[in-house]
Amino acid sequence: MLKHPPVVKETDLPLLVDLYELAMAQAYWSEGMNENGVFSLFFRTLPENRNFVLACGQQHVAHIIESLAFTDEHIKRLESLGRFQPRFLDWLREFRFSGSVHAIAEGTPVFPQEPLLEVEGPVAEVQLLESLVMNYVHLESVLASKAVRLIFAAQGRPVVDFGMRRTHGMDAAHRGVRAYRFAGLAGTSNVLAGLDFNMPVYGTMAHSFVQACTGEMEAFRTYARLYPGTTLLVDTYDTRSAVARIIDWLQEEPEVRIGGIRLDSGDLASDAAECRRMLDEAGLGDVKIMASGGLDEYKIATLVSDNAPIDGFGVGTAIGASNDEPALELAFKLTEYADLPRMKNSPGKQSFPGRKQVYRRLDPNGRLAQDVVAGRDEVFDGEPLLKPVMKRGLIIEGAIPTLDSQVDDAKRALDALPSQFRSLEPAYENPVVISDFLRALQRDTLAKVRG
Amino acid sequence: MLKHPPVVKETDLPLLVDLYELAMAQAYWSEGMNENGVFSLFFRTLPENRNFVLACGQQHVAHIIESLAFTDEHIKRLESLGRFQPRFLDWLREFRFSGSVHAIAEGTPVFPQEPLLEVEGPVAEVQLLESLVMNYVHLESVLASKAVRLIFAAQGRPVVDFGMRRTHGMDAAHRGVRAYRFAGLAGTSNVLAGLDFNMPVYGTMAHSFVQACTGEMEAFRTYARLYPGTTLLVDTYDTRSAVARIIDWLQEEPEVRIGGIRLDSGDLASDAAECRRMLDEAGLGDVKIMASGGLDEYKIATLVSDNAPIDGFGVGTAIGASNDEPALELAFKLTEYADLPRMKNSPGKQSFPGRKQVYRRLDPNGRLAQDVVAGRDEVFDGEPLLKPVMKRGLIIEGAIPTLDSQVDDAKRALDALPSQFRSLEPAYENPVVISDFLRALQRDTLAKVRG
Repeated sequence: MLKHPPVVKETDLPLLVDLYELAMAQAYWSEGMNENGVFSLFFRTLPENRNFVLACGQQHVAHIIESLAFTDEHIKRLESLGRFQPRFLDWLREFRFSGSVHAIAEGTPVFPQEPLLEVEGPVAEVQLLESLVMNYVHLESVLASKAVRLIFAAQGRPVVDFGMRRTHGMDAAHRGVRAYRFAGLAGTSNVLAGLDFNMPVYGTMAHSFVQACTGEMEAFRTYARLYPGTTLLVDTYDTRSAVARIIDWLQEEPEVRIGGIRLDSGDLASDAAECRRMLDEAGLGDVKIMASGGLDEYKIATLVSDNAPIDGFGVGTAIGASNDEPALELAFKLTEYADLPRMKNSPGKQSFPGRKQVYRRLDPNGRLAQDVVAGRDEVFDGEPLLKPVMKRGLIIEGAIPTLDSQVDDAKRALDALPSQFRSLEPAYENPVVISDFLRALQRDTLAKVRG
Repeated sequence: MLKHPPVVKETDLPLLVDLYELAMAQAYWSEGMNENGVFSLFFRTLPENRNFVLACGQQHVAHIIESLAFTDEHIKRLESLGRFQPRFLDWLREFRFSGSVHAIAEGTPVFPQEPLLEVEGPVAEVQLLESLVMNYVHLESVLASKAVRLIFAAQGRPVVDFGMRRTHGMDAAHRGVRAYRFAGLAGTSNVLAGLDFNMPVYGTMAHSFVQACTGEMEAFRTYARLYPGTTLLVDTYDTRSAVARIIDWLQEEPEVRIGGIRLDSGDLASDAAECRRMLDEAGLGDVKIMASGGLDEYKIATLVSDNAPIDGFGVGTAIGASNDEPALELAFKLTEYADLPRMKNSPGKQSFPGRKQVYRRLDPNGRLAQDVVAGRDEVFDGEPLLKPVMKRGLIIEGAIPTLDSQVDDAKRALDALPSQFRSLEPAYENPVVISDFLRALQRDTLAKVRG
């Protein structure tokens, strides 16, 4: 037997914490530092090949925050580390988050320096949430921000997630699919995630089935009988001869219904063109051509701009691991404590102090014109993006919409992005303006910490 | 309430399957194709900046395989997809893996085309394991293969995992730490994973604690009192003035014990040199200097070769997300069915058919000289790497060593790697030889499938 389960148990999430958070919590506790802290979650910068982050997870993480509690077993395990005082462990045993959370909508495109989440509460309580909140939001935001690029590249042709084998672990395989919904993917091969996150589940055959059968045609006939309208994988031995044989068969047996063929290797553009020509000449114009095998947004964009007759794309590695940018510079920083603004002055890492709001302004055509990052109590034109999600430790009734409705909102927010941000090329443009108040607050706070 | 748990439940792992596996299983079942299939797990190729894969997970996954079973609830959910026949769902309800597994030791360096795992059993049973096995082994192998490069770069100075906030989800944050043990990391910041995988847990303070205190020195004094021998984070406002103040304080209060300081930003080499000089001049030669902040193997190698006086490294993004190569070309392929060799002929994806063994030969100095990938029944000099792990669906008693003992074995296997494979530069060398038998088998099988 394994001494631990193969996946993290929900009940063990409180221990999924970086040790320094517990060390700091004990220090706050021992010093009687129990005033409110405000922590802000934001992306510091973006890599050149991301024009925005599609932020996901920042509302859902409230469910974890709300239920986080240490069990006696957890306390015993922490005791074994020999660093915690019995009375602090008692405090930990009683811990329930008692503060408030503001967050932007799931699936909102955000830019550097814009808070996606602000947590306020007794500083030790909020400190304990740091790594869990970051890990939770980072995963989905990274995967959604990659996946949406494939959607842009595909220009309306459906993109389906085949990435489970390449995602980093099972939590990522599962929750990634929720991220892909915000990005606009059409479906997933992943059964559990499709069922849990209400996304169509797709999948027909791998090469192994073709190989195990006595011949390729036997495999195809079996599938056509079991799954009318199925998609046949045609590249196991030789794509064009497979398609030629399928055509002969369908002409001999016109009652057989095949929905499509899938190309998974080789020169997709020329194979697709040739297969399309063969199928069309045989009067099989309704048999679709799907493509997969090492696709990313650039390859899809080329296929689309070359008018390759491909009706849909299956993508694995690129979206499963966000292979070009698997990590983004997400930060969770103390911006206020005991009603005073706080910031650090580390080179390249200065942030803006104080609790904040983001106002998103649209132009008359409904396109994003400017975001203003302001102090929480400032008022600007535009829609305030940060909305209350938790109060006194509890999720506010009705504050978190259903997933389907969140996905609809995300689509609208994506549609409002001007074309330069929807391009695969760097936008070299930043729609974010920092308010004068925040700039002055940063200047004053900096002067104080330097003094 | 969330309709699903925030992390995948162990009991839901059977549904973490790609739909095509279930579709194929039903097809095998419906066609009475219940002969044994052999599936082989291997890396197709390696990116230029990986000289080998440190394979992890291929033995541990047997625990998942052994206990995999569909519940009535799972069957009901599958039924809702409308693609499965009631009698196939009955078969699925009775499913327990009944086959055998061969695997190489956890933490073995492997090269392209070397099987890490071979699963044999009724073909439908093995097919159902595909994505789960791949996901499980891919995660740890990707993270360990990156982490070991940092160990090579650090040349004996300890490297500690700070990556939880950047790993893709919680399963990766947790199981990644087991991978880091095989790679040789000295510790982790992650409490749950450290406790579960018996790795020292490290962590003292973040900038937030310094910011929340009235002044930096208040933060330092609190920590020195609560945690004698602690490491102080000195870059919140200005590294060198912080160190100057620490020196004044320690000279005034010589009874205070500080173990080290940590630099987390700025020019680590010059700050470390200057801090070391200041500390040494003050007679504080035993105060160590730790560095963190955007480190990867190349930065560490430069710091080490420049003799930067840094005693240990904390690494986040690089190892948490394996940021340069977050995905590797892992494949799980049918190589035999009904005692006949099987292979596909897709461009660039031809594999070797048949069940296999890998013989690792060492030179007289105990260094890896050559690996022979051979048929399972061939005999060559060297150590056979694939060993039986499961038989008739059950883990063989004693076949999977304890984690600590596996880690010791992994260290020996890494130590046996010649220097070109331990370099950060591409080795441009492949120690793998394919046996004549396998080459002939490939040729014959290819002729058959083409014919």
